[in-house]
Amino acid sequence: MKFFPQYNRVQNKEFEAAGKRLKEEISAMRGVLQSGYSDDRCSINLPADHDLLQMVLGLSQEKKGMDPEAIVVAGIGGSSLGTLAVLEAVRGKLHNREGAGIKVYFAETVDSDYTSDILSIVEAVLERGKNVLVNGVSKSGGTTETIANFEILVDLLMRAGDDYKKYVTVTTDRDSKLWNFAVENGFSVLAVPKKVGGRFSVFSPVGLFPLAVAGLNVKNLLQGAAGMRESCLREFENNPAAQSAAEIFCFSRQRNIYDLFLFGTDLEALGKWYRQLMGESLGKEYDRRGRRVYQGITPTVSVGSVDLHSVAQLYLGGPQDKFTTFVSVTNGRTDVPVPERKDYERLVPHIQGRSLSSIMSAILQGVKTAYKKGGRPFNEVVLDDKSERSIGEFLQFKMMEMMYLGFLLDVNPFDQPNVESYKIETRKNLSES
Amino acid sequence: MKFFPQYNRVQNKEFEAAGKRLKEEISAMRGVLQSGYSDDRCSINLPADHDLLQMVLGLSQEKKGMDPEAIVVAGIGGSSLGTLAVLEAVRGKLHNREGAGIKVYFAETVDSDYTSDILSIVEAVLERGKNVLVNGVSKSGGTTETIANFEILVDLLMRAGDDYKKYVTVTTDRDSKLWNFAVENGFSVLAVPKKVGGRFSVFSPVGLFPLAVAGLNVKNLLQGAAGMRESCLREFENNPAAQSAAEIFCFSRQRNIYDLFLFGTDLEALGKWYRQLMGESLGKEYDRRGRRVYQGITPTVSVGSVDLHSVAQLYLGGPQDKFTTFVSVTNGRTDVPVPERKDYERLVPHIQGRSLSSIMSAILQGVKTAYKKGGRPFNEVVLDDKSERSIGEFLQFKMMEMMYLGFLLDVNPFDQPNVESYKIETRKNLSES
Repeated sequence: MKFFPQYNRVQNKEFEAAGKRLKEEISAMRGVLQSGYSDDRCSINLPADHDLLQMVLGLSQEKKGMDPEAIVVAGIGGSSLGTLAVLEAVRGKLHNREGAGIKVYFAETVDSDYTSDILSIVEAVLERGKNVLVNGVSKSGGTTETIANFEILVDLLMRAGDDYKKYVTVTTDRDSKLWNFAVENGFSVLAVPKKVGGRFSVFSPVGLFPLAVAGLNVKNLLQGAAGMRESCLREFENNPAAQSAAEIFCFSRQRNIYDLFLFGTDLEALGKWYRQLMGESLGKEYDRRGRRVYQGITPTVSVGSVDLHSVAQLYLGGPQDKFTTFVSVTNGRTDVPVPERKDYERLVPHIQGRSLSSIMSAILQGVKTAYKKGGRPFNEVVLDDKSERSIGEFLQFKMMEMMYLGFLLDVNPFDQPNVESYKIETRKNLSES
Repeated sequence: MKFFPQYNRVQNKEFEAAGKRLKEEISAMRGVLQSGYSDDRCSINLPADHDLLQMVLGLSQEKKGMDPEAIVVAGIGGSSLGTLAVLEAVRGKLHNREGAGIKVYFAETVDSDYTSDILSIVEAVLERGKNVLVNGVSKSGGTTETIANFEILVDLLMRAGDDYKKYVTVTTDRDSKLWNFAVENGFSVLAVPKKVGGRFSVFSPVGLFPLAVAGLNVKNLLQGAAGMRESCLREFENNPAAQSAAEIFCFSRQRNIYDLFLFGTDLEALGKWYRQLMGESLGKEYDRRGRRVYQGITPTVSVGSVDLHSVAQLYLGGPQDKFTTFVSVTNGRTDVPVPERKDYERLVPHIQGRSLSSIMSAILQGVKTAYKKGGRPFNEVVLDDKSERSIGEFLQFKMMEMMYLGFLLDVNPFDQPNVESYKIETRKNLSES
């Protein structure tokens, strides 16, 4: 992964000042490496946790030995977004097409129609005498949507066979209600380190287990993350996460929207993972000193080139309220060429015989030039490819960027106190009706 | 469909003033009903165009008679978003699962890996001796991404059989380069009325043909739209589109983000369709009088309850820079209950035996209460169901709202001049390299 900051476009002074402020936090972050899972920032210790990896690999091998045709993850937010991001980036958005390996479905919310469609898929597999795994993922162990879907799915497996328990795995905080329930019922259980919050948990069993079952190389994912972690602990001048944080921080003084513009259909889920990371980490009513600040930057996710045909007019002609990061991939898995046929030439010239990737690349270059000419600020991230290693790098880069950004904005990037307000109201509604 | 404005929360004066200004435009819009396809606003005449419907139904019947297993739409932006929106809303996001009817794939951008996955799906169908339809959709007839994918797909069909031409349909402006190419090659062709722009074209053959092939009831879709059109031509006081426009307009004076928060996994694509509609229609460098204004509202799409676990913290604790519309559905296609098992009760209380829809409804109510208590402004749209008729109503409502909003913001909602800037650069890159 390469990061190309554009700080020459920021007031240099502001950028340098942010860099100076970050020295303290970079140093504190290095200290976290020695403190296990006791610090709020401890998710950076996951990529080098070999015991945890071995445990996940052991269990996923066991479950894969049951020759499952599909795995259904019951999880929402931090319990699904990271897994989906890695899966789609590595395997493609159409990863569940026929003949492409173990199918992975996500039962996220309590949408009756969507859950019902998943149930009909699972039922069809079970009726063919094949196996389906269920992975219930809830850090707290009490997420309403997840528990509802989990109960429905376990019930379905139960009706299909007496040995249903071995197909069920639960990922949650040690000793949560769900943990105890799972142990009593004889399900497999995987613990999430307590201080690792949902949006920072992709390298914990939350992401690793379903990805390993699906056949992804999670060791490479972690190795990519571990390498990037080293880069993101360096001095500011050579630290991509700190520089990215400083840049977004400087632009956020004048612009309230941050657009992650990913060139690649398979990267959309990665964008949605980041949307939670930024939204929940920075959107805060109070700062660290308890002052009411209504802080936050609104993350938007754009996918190239699709969204050039949707929101480019706004981005190039509309208000100057956005800072953009373009994310692109150097080497795809394939390179399909446009056929060379003479009579095609008159439809769109200069694309015959070219590879789709080179056309995409010409579009991205065109967009960057248009942004520059229009005075629209952006920086750039280039991934080598969409391998587990590269995606691991990107995820770790962005998670550490967010910790630095929280520091610069003087908010706690690890809590989410305001979501309690709707949860309280929801519980009232559920208990009253 | 029901629309619940919240204008008591807006300065009433401002809202009333907007309503007064709209009188002129409502009256002009009524005049459009008599002028065929000559006015920029003429897309409102599509729902009552019986000749066009008959033509589309005739051709789709013919193509369905070939017993296709799948249809691939090569189209991007306005040529794919509306079709996908209707398809996913009516058939569900998992509409391509086994046993759920004709499969529909969208080749939108020049992403080699995604197109390659589609090709492998198409190849597998052809190898089984089954048929695949291709629908190339480009209003101008010269959209780079669409033409590239279309050429690749036609090439694949060509290699599979001499009779390939009958499986190909082209939807484009009459007499575009693509139109002429299609006629010369013996493909079926469908014309888009010239003045109907991409983002307003879902009720033209652009959306109707692939939806009809997929087995949707496009007649009901149009009937829903036609009924809504009548409502949206009424006096301001009883006109949901005009009131919605006035409300968004008033809030946009202080808030630069409009969040369409759809409660239903299957409605996400509907949100993305609207994202283009608002982004391209209002994001303008110049106003109607040629003054440089950098106008625009940034549309965001949230999906409930998934995104409560992603960006609710930002929405409830962050900056006061958003106006929200909650969209919900009264009657889903199904209503899956959570099983009643005593030992489940301790995980999450009060959900045993309840239907998923009622839990979702309790969450939505909880969110609305939290928004109210937090002083976060919103209004609401409630769809009767996700039938073709209801979706047609919503689409027509939002398209007319956007025309009224363009009028209030004094911009031309029908052009997209700034996208030319990156297209020019892209063409340069393609011709030079």
